[in-house]
Amino acid sequence: MDSHQENSSNLQHNYSEASLQDLVKRLSRIEGHIRGVKNMVETSRPCPDVLVQIAAVRGAVQQVGRIILHEYLRESVARTTQQGDIKTEIEALKTVLDRFLT
Amino acid sequence: MDSHQENSSNLQHNYSEASLQDLVKRLSRIEGHIRGVKNMVETSRPCPDVLVQIAAVRGAVQQVGRIILHEYLRESVARTTQQGDIKTEIEALKTVLDRFLT
Amino acid sequence: MDSHQENSSNLQHNYSEASLQDLVKRLSRIEGHIRGVKNMVETSRPCPDVLVQIAAVRGAVQQVGRIILHEYLRESVARTTQQGDIKTEIEALKTVLDRFLT
Amino acid sequence: MDSHQENSSNLQHNYSEASLQDLVKRLSRIEGHIRGVKNMVETSRPCPDVLVQIAAVRGAVQQVGRIILHEYLRESVARTTQQGDIKTEIEALKTVLDRFLT
Repeated sequence: MDSHQENSSNLQHNYSEASLQDLVKRLSRIEGHIRGVKNMVETSRPCPDVLVQIAAVRGAVQQVGRIILHEYLRESVARTTQQGDIKTEIEALKTVLDRFLT
Repeated sequence: MDSHQENSSNLQHNYSEASLQDLVKRLSRIEGHIRGVKNMVETSRPCPDVLVQIAAVRGAVQQVGRIILHEYLRESVARTTQQGDIKTEIEALKTVLDRFLT
Repeated sequence: MDSHQENSSNLQHNYSEASLQDLVKRLSRIEGHIRGVKNMVETSRPCPDVLVQIAAVRGAVQQVGRIILHEYLRESVARTTQQGDIKTEIEALKTVLDRFLT
Repeated sequence: MDSHQENSSNLQHNYSEASLQDLVKRLSRIEGHIRGVKNMVETSRPCPDVLVQIAAVRGAVQQVGRIILHEYLRESVARTTQQGDIKTEIEALKTVLDRFLT
């Protein structure tokens, strides 16, 4: 069975231990940040203060996306050089990029 | 006096009950969504699947920002018509917009 | 006839002379910048070099948008304090912002 | 030697004829669009109308960026499979992406 034909949900991504810990830490921090924003709204804090925090969360989320995009690039280029299925990889890369770019 | 109360001109924002509930619900959902992304990373789910979820979180965070910006516009215009300090309000609006626009 | 009911295309925006000159200068510069990018593509310049210029154009276009948004905020708040039609103005501001925010 | 020829590793990008024509057409259209926006500002057209056009220009510029990013991905993956310098290519791809993502 050609693993390339399988749905992406069958392919696991191999994070390095350091990269995985970094990402989990970032995501936990974002989770706490969102809770903080919720608390600001619940206590009627001024909108400009809330917006600054939301912009910070947005930046942190985008940064996680960027890191995972890097992970995917690395995986994708490595797989292409091993398996040589250039066309399929490039199409997959384009699709992923277009989904993530706004 | 708690310095927490001092910044941004000491003003609390008056959310309507409906608006506050909507925002809290959205933020709770984003919090859960982030936890889901963290779980995907921890279980080595494929990068494209993770990126789709991150793009969704990013959109949801931006939508909360948009709603709070609307709240602020409403508050700011109302305050201007009551107090007539047009110049100060416009400068404050510009500052807030520039912080939020990327 | 209530000028407020007219379509937006009947309302002229009053730029200050300085602001108008600044905007026209920025837009002329962007136009030249785009021509430069076109020339780079036509002469097969490396993609990374082209992308850097496109990111610069994108930033310059966004900056023009920001300036015109500021102009509109000023106009809108001024009109509200003169005519007091808060609700209509706020709705118009929200619409414009949502069109411009991504 | 012309320093213009030196940067970005001296590599010309090979566009297909169709792709080059498409890009040049898009860039010419954006150039005309910018001229149109300049004309709107010079004739004091309402800010919301101008902002709609600026948002359209911004989208068109981003689309050109996306197409050139696709070109670069294709070139980069092809070069890697031919020359096998995975690490260098991936680092270059990351740099380009980070410059273009906001």
